[in-house]
Formats: sequence, C-alpha cells, structure tokens
Amino acid sequence: MRVTALAGGTGAAKFLRGLVSCVNPRDVTVIGNTADDAEIWGLHVSPDLDTVTYALTGHLDTGRGWGIAEDSFNALAAVAVLGGETWFRLGDRDLATHIYRTRALRAGLSLTDVTAAIGRGLGLRVRLLPMSDDPVRTRLETPDGWLDFQHYFVREGARPRVIGVEYAGAEKAAPAPGVLDAIRTADVVIVCPSNPITSIGPILSVPGVREALHETNATVLAISPIVGGAPVSGPAGALMRACGLPVTAAGVARAYAPWLDLLVIDRRDIEETLAVREVGAEPVLGETILIDHDREVALARRVLEVAA
Amino acid sequence: MRVTALAGGTGAAKFLRGLVSCVNPRDVTVIGNTADDAEIWGLHVSPDLDTVTYALTGHLDTGRGWGIAEDSFNALAAVAVLGGETWFRLGDRDLATHIYRTRALRAGLSLTDVTAAIGRGLGLRVRLLPMSDDPVRTRLETPDGWLDFQHYFVREGARPRVIGVEYAGAEKAAPAPGVLDAIRTADVVIVCPSNPITSIGPILSVPGVREALHETNATVLAISPIVGGAPVSGPAGALMRACGLPVTAAGVARAYAPWLDLLVIDRRDIEETLAVREVGAEPVLGETILIDHDREVALARRVLEVAA
Repeated sequence: MRVTALAGGTGAAKFLRGLVSCVNPRDVTVIGNTADDAEIWGLHVSPDLDTVTYALTGHLDTGRGWGIAEDSFNALAAVAVLGGETWFRLGDRDLATHIYRTRALRAGLSLTDVTAAIGRGLGLRVRLLPMSDDPVRTRLETPDGWLDFQHYFVREGARPRVIGVEYAGAEKAAPAPGVLDAIRTADVVIVCPSNPITSIGPILSVPGVREALHETNATVLAISPIVGGAPVSGPAGALMRACGLPVTAAGVARAYAPWLDLLVIDRRDIEETLAVREVGAEPVLGETILIDHDREVALARRVLEVAA
Repeated sequence: MRVTALAGGTGAAKFLRGLVSCVNPRDVTVIGNTADDAEIWGLHVSPDLDTVTYALTGHLDTGRGWGIAEDSFNALAAVAVLGGETWFRLGDRDLATHIYRTRALRAGLSLTDVTAAIGRGLGLRVRLLPMSDDPVRTRLETPDGWLDFQHYFVREGARPRVIGVEYAGAEKAAPAPGVLDAIRTADVVIVCPSNPITSIGPILSVPGVREALHETNATVLAISPIVGGAPVSGPAGALMRACGLPVTAAGVARAYAPWLDLLVIDRRDIEETLAVREVGAEPVLGETILIDHDREVALARRVLEVAA
C-alpha cells in the first residue's frame, strides 16, 4: 500500500513514527511543509523537514519536539557572547544540518536533493519531499504589522493576535519534483495531525496540489489536530480563528472539505460527527492524543484500516 | 609607547600575550594576516585573526594553538555523519565566530568592522586590524599543482613539496583602514615570530605596507621564528627554502632586510649575528622559545627595551 502523507512538524512526526511501524517505509512519501523555513544566522533552516527526518531516524528530542536529542548549545552560547541573535535555539548537532543544507543550496542543489541527502546521511527510510523547491513563506498579519512565521511562533512565542495569514511566494512556486505524482499515485493520502493553517495550508497553496488531491483515486484521510475544541499543541486554534474557521474537528474538515474523504477525530469529539459529515467528510473515531509510541502505532493502524 | 605588530597566528599570539603584559593594550595595534582565510562549510574563517583574538582574551586552546579552549566538536561530528568535509576542525564555540563573521560580511560590513565587533564581544583590548578588507590568498605551488593555504597546511598536513608561493589578489588589495597609519605613526613596529612566507609575507604584499615600513620613524624590529636552523613551529622552513631563503635567522633578516632595524634572534643562534648584520639588520640576542607565560613576558620586555 503506497501512502503519501502531508506533514508539518511535531504532530506529524509523532503520527509518522507510528505509520512506519505499520507499513514498509519504502512505500511512504512524506510531503513536508517548507513555509516556516527561515534564515537563521545566514543559514537555511527547514524546521518541519528536519523534525520529520529527526523523528523517523531516532534523532529527535522528543521532549522539546524539535532539534536533536542530547544536543549541546555551545555555538548558541558563543553567538550570545558576540551579541548575535539567539531567539531561535539551534543546537550544535542540529547546526550541522543547516550548515550542510545552506552550503549545498548555495552550490546549486535543489531543496529536494539536499533533503534527500540529509535523509540518506541520517538513515531516513521514507521518501521525504519538500512541498516546493521555491520559497513559500507563511506570514502572519498582526495589529502591529506582518511577521514571518518563526518571528511570530518562536521569537514572539505565538502571543501576537493574528488577523491575517498569507503564503508569500505560493502563486509562483512549483510543486517539488514528485509531489503531485505522489498524491496522484498513492493508495492512501494522509493529512497528518498538523496545523491546518501554517503546516498543511502552505502545502495546499502550492499550485497543483489541491487539484491533485481532487483527482487522485486514493482515499484521502486527515487526522484532526483539534481535540475538545483546542489544538493538541501549538497555535492552530488562534490561526484557525483568524482564518474564520471554528476551532473544532468540523473546522478542520472545512479546511480540507472539497477533497477530503475521511477525518479521524478523537473519541472525545464524538458529538462532532454530524458537523463533520455536514462538511462532506466521513468522520472516524480514534485515539488521537499521541502520548507514547504505542498510541502512535495504534493510530496509524486505525488509519490504515479505515482507509483500506 | 605606541606599538604596532605584524602578526600571523600561533607564534604571534604567544609573543603578543607577553606584550600586553608590558604595555597598555590600548597603545597596541596588531595587523593580522588574512591570506590564510578560508571558506569552510560556506563560512568565512579567519584563522590568524581569531588566534590573536582568542589568545589575548584568554579563550585560546593553548595546547592546540588554535580554536577555543574546552570547545566541543558536536557540529563537526554531525557534519561527518552527513558526509560533509571535516578536515578543517571547527569547534562548536569557534563556529559561532565564523557564523557571526560570515553573516556580518554578507550584510555588507567590512572585515575590519567585523573583526572589531568580534574583539569587542570577546573583550579584546588591543586594536586588531586585518591587513586588508580585500581578499588576498596565499597559494602554494606543488609538483601536483597549486593548493590553497589551508588545503596545504591542514588538509595535507604541510606534506606536499612546495616549489612556489603566490599571494593571489595582493596587487589589487588595499590596506585596511588604519594599517598604513599604524605603521607610520608607531614608536615601535614589531614583526612577530611568525612564518615569514605565509604569515608576514602576505602582509608585506599589500600595496603600501612595504613603503610604510620604509618611511616610518619607528624602530622596526622582528623576532626570528627560526631557531637553530629550524622553525619553532609550522612549515616556515620548507616555505623559506621554496622562496630561496636560508632557514636561519639571517634568512629571516633577508626576508625583511630593506626596512628592518633590529632582529631578535635566539641566544643559541649567537653564531648568526654576523650573517644577520651583513644583511643590514642589527641582531639582538633573546630567549625566543616561548614555553610559558613568563618567557612570553620576558621576551616582550627585552623587545621593548632594545627598541626604546
């Protein structure tokens, strides 16, 4: 069974860890969000791609949900002494990934190629594709003006009120090689439990992706990142609200409505089933709070079972 | 007493550590070699400037003679996993300096400004100037072709036979702001015990520097890095030979002859005094093997005493 997953960072990483315990990783393509990529210290950082790579190769710091386990922060401390920016915390081992990526991109490699090379180096067995080799950047409008995603999310701790969202560069971006094919030729397309606005939204904004989701013969299934009227983690709630979506499983279904077949919602959201169905997706109950690896595997198994 | 020193890396760092114990660091200008600067991992590394900065701020790993004491090498290990180049060993704290420098240079700052900013951040009290803000690069001709300095020195361990030396870019380079003035207005100009070919030679190759050394009213004094017919450290011997200079104190005097007043030679080279004098410099005996800080201070005191 060929599985293609649309993925953000932390939430996606947990689900994907379960998924690769249930299917052959060789049959899995992950399309990763790159709209929260940022230039930090002059280096190209791809937080979502790295979180997926680190998670699926056993390198992720699972406590923090980002970066490399047991990393040191000696370069960061030294940058602080020099008066450089330290709001984005890059660990020393993590830094190597960004140095490697930046150098390869400057040498003319595509983000697709660099992502594959990093995956090979770290032992990644799924195929991880960036959504696009072109720059697409999520920007958030606040009462004080526009913010880049990482400025909003990390530097400002997701505190500013968001009144608008844009995916800058999306109109001119091309899907990365393999992205549309992976959606069209999959048996199952899974939208991971990621932020619909800042993780999945940018992938959908890449020209051709929505059309491919419409056209594919695959079962298209999403896992709601909203449980009990609140996001499992991160700022999805405020951002969905800013985009006029209710912060509910039905709100998630609405974000994906035109092409979504199934929405896995948490058992405690059983009263949402009707609202989800009204938006046009078939609700499926599951345990979506992934507090340990057993839950990750159980959710993946449930997803594959209902998709089959 | 205003002192201007021409400096390479390790040997210069030891002498300068002694010097700043004897004079007010505010009265010292160090003109640093930048011809062994290199791009490593896409970052601008200035080994000699950093060695001087680290040495005079107590950060230098004195055992290795380069890098930061008690640094970790976690980024390097992670770059190795990705298959990146690891022949140039950058520590994690050291890396911060190069990241900071590269970013500032890309933002349009000059190497002079960046060097000053790094010095301020680390607490450097002397004025450290790069010899030029323009790229000058020492290249070494070997029987197998030309090598960049760091490829020759670090990657190849200074093993290839050298048959020629060039300072690429020197003709078009301008001395960095303050360099010529620091030579012209000093009371003493000290050529540190550095490699005459790859540390001091590039500084002399910058248009205007030799003329300033000719014109200055300062006493111009050098400390021989050659003791007992061999360099105290590094590949100075092979390189002097490649440039047709005898590997002796007199050979050092010859490299600096037209403008050198005094050459401090080691006591064990007493039989060199005549040969040095024949080249046109007045030899001065001293203890030039700097095995501890007391020796560093003693040599600096001796230098200042004879120069006065």
